[in-house]
Amino acid sequence: MTPKTLVPGHTIGIIGGGQLGRMLALAAARLGLKCHIFCPEDNAPASQVAHHTTIAAYDDVQALADFAAAVDVVTYEFENIPADSVAVLAASKPVYPSAKALAVSQDRLDEKSFISQLGIAVADFYDITSAETLAHALQQTGGHGILKTRRFGYDGKGQWRLSPDSDLAEVMAQLDGQPAILEALVEFEREVSVIVARDLNGHITCYAPIENQHENHILRRSLMPAQVSNAVAQTAVQLAEKLATALDYIGVLSIETFVTVDGLVVNEIAPRVHNSGHLTQDACAVGQFEQHIRAISGWPLGDTQAHSDAVMTNLLGDEIDQWADWAAQANTAVHLYGKEQAKAGRKMGHVTQLKAK
Amino acid sequence: MTPKTLVPGHTIGIIGGGQLGRMLALAAARLGLKCHIFCPEDNAPASQVAHHTTIAAYDDVQALADFAAAVDVVTYEFENIPADSVAVLAASKPVYPSAKALAVSQDRLDEKSFISQLGIAVADFYDITSAETLAHALQQTGGHGILKTRRFGYDGKGQWRLSPDSDLAEVMAQLDGQPAILEALVEFEREVSVIVARDLNGHITCYAPIENQHENHILRRSLMPAQVSNAVAQTAVQLAEKLATALDYIGVLSIETFVTVDGLVVNEIAPRVHNSGHLTQDACAVGQFEQHIRAISGWPLGDTQAHSDAVMTNLLGDEIDQWADWAAQANTAVHLYGKEQAKAGRKMGHVTQLKAK
Repeated sequence: MTPKTLVPGHTIGIIGGGQLGRMLALAAARLGLKCHIFCPEDNAPASQVAHHTTIAAYDDVQALADFAAAVDVVTYEFENIPADSVAVLAASKPVYPSAKALAVSQDRLDEKSFISQLGIAVADFYDITSAETLAHALQQTGGHGILKTRRFGYDGKGQWRLSPDSDLAEVMAQLDGQPAILEALVEFEREVSVIVARDLNGHITCYAPIENQHENHILRRSLMPAQVSNAVAQTAVQLAEKLATALDYIGVLSIETFVTVDGLVVNEIAPRVHNSGHLTQDACAVGQFEQHIRAISGWPLGDTQAHSDAVMTNLLGDEIDQWADWAAQANTAVHLYGKEQAKAGRKMGHVTQLKAK
Repeated sequence: MTPKTLVPGHTIGIIGGGQLGRMLALAAARLGLKCHIFCPEDNAPASQVAHHTTIAAYDDVQALADFAAAVDVVTYEFENIPADSVAVLAASKPVYPSAKALAVSQDRLDEKSFISQLGIAVADFYDITSAETLAHALQQTGGHGILKTRRFGYDGKGQWRLSPDSDLAEVMAQLDGQPAILEALVEFEREVSVIVARDLNGHITCYAPIENQHENHILRRSLMPAQVSNAVAQTAVQLAEKLATALDYIGVLSIETFVTVDGLVVNEIAPRVHNSGHLTQDACAVGQFEQHIRAISGWPLGDTQAHSDAVMTNLLGDEIDQWADWAAQANTAVHLYGKEQAKAGRKMGHVTQLKAK
């Protein structure tokens, strides 16, 4: 569909009702734009703050078509949307990021191939379709590696860390025929992400690289600025810009990298706002959520310079009960997502602590 | 009603659906709290981002009672709520700020008397009930002064600037029997406001004083920090704390003052968040809207220190059409209110420009 500049009063359609959709909707509201959420759940975090919600399955073609008819542009907060659903939406309204960007990031094999073909380093990776291809790949990597389903994994789900001691038959049974890749292990000093935005005219802005600390495969803490040299920071920004341009990307794109002795290695890309970018809400005049809304709405991109240094800590599961302690801290912003059940490991909120630069 | 600490998932009832209610609702959403708006208009700015809306007249007793039953605490975004309506609400739920604070600020004569009795300077003022009392008061002020209705004025409405040339019969005709006060003119260097918050335990926090520039009786621009000496800033904060304590106030209280050669003179107080405090959203980790939500919810008050200097400019009427120019500025946050009609002088949005301190 033809790109369109939204004006105040126009409506953004968001596929997905979680915390990313919620913070996108809050950012859109600041700009006088309305949001219409599409998700299967009642009382989803995003619905609580949006103008409208369509409650339907992600493959409900009629509901998708009605939703698209009711909004001015469509975006999404997670990458596991069926391609057929995107096609239905794209038939009547612009969908950003595009189906192409979505397809690349939905499949780890396609993603790694795409990045690699741009001359950007990724972990050595192998297409795994059988016990034989797995055994052969492990020979190349010295018996170590991470087996990942090509699709639908997140926060360590759908992943198996393999060593020469692993019971490969058991792993193949758990994989249960799903297409997968084996990635060689990468020795890294730290993990750094880059949040890049590209607008309808091809203009690109990047926030300064952000350092991430994981626990149990879940993001625990992010810091800006990342503790890396200027040269590494510059390289990280350049590869983010290269990826956004190569994907002809519209919106916010998130790139996770490993800092190694041999340079930066891209771990994965996400065609959306990202947990590590949450601190930009509080550390910059325009955060990642508003930046995404601006990009897909044909607005000028916002200034990405940070007025403060920042540390973001996720509140996982019943850590949300610590909200009052966090709220009492100096220079601290608390963000809670309106989720009813605090399951273990579930992202219930986050806090950002600011510090003068 | 007994004070109550709200937890994420609880619901705040807000009387009024304008931009202040909208920004209160957005601030509450960040904390995982829900909002239920009560206002007579369909598609009000606040409703667009709130969980629920009751559309009813402000004196609809049944609707008010049902609304109070559905929420955990009640607050408001404007001071002209009928006292009887507040009584209905307060019968079933805590209402903050209290009926007393509301009553004092609803009536300019009561307000000036209250402030004056605390030993805080206000303009000389006179109770005007007739042409005779007006003529007598003008003798005291040398023929100059500002006649104001005791109730319901804002942005210069219900005000007449009087001089020895004024046609007093005509003015009395326009006043049409409404109770009024005459205020002597105050010669001032600048106007400064203080946004103070007091919580359920009597703790008080103040943002740094903010300087305000008016045009045609409407706020044009606010600046933080105000260009005043430390001594003046300290005095402004002290009198704000004194007023909040004397009113046994819960929530955000806004105090407008004149800086004169003889010290600070209080112009008026507003029992709510205030246009001049909008810049705290972008210049502080916790802005005035969240501070109010925290105070009335039994949460710890947030840190009021500013990470940046800030200038806030109101977008009035068709100035909202300049949104794209503002959005392209460095270090600038744009806030638009979702209002459909851009009438002359109507507050349609504001922008905050940040600068390193």
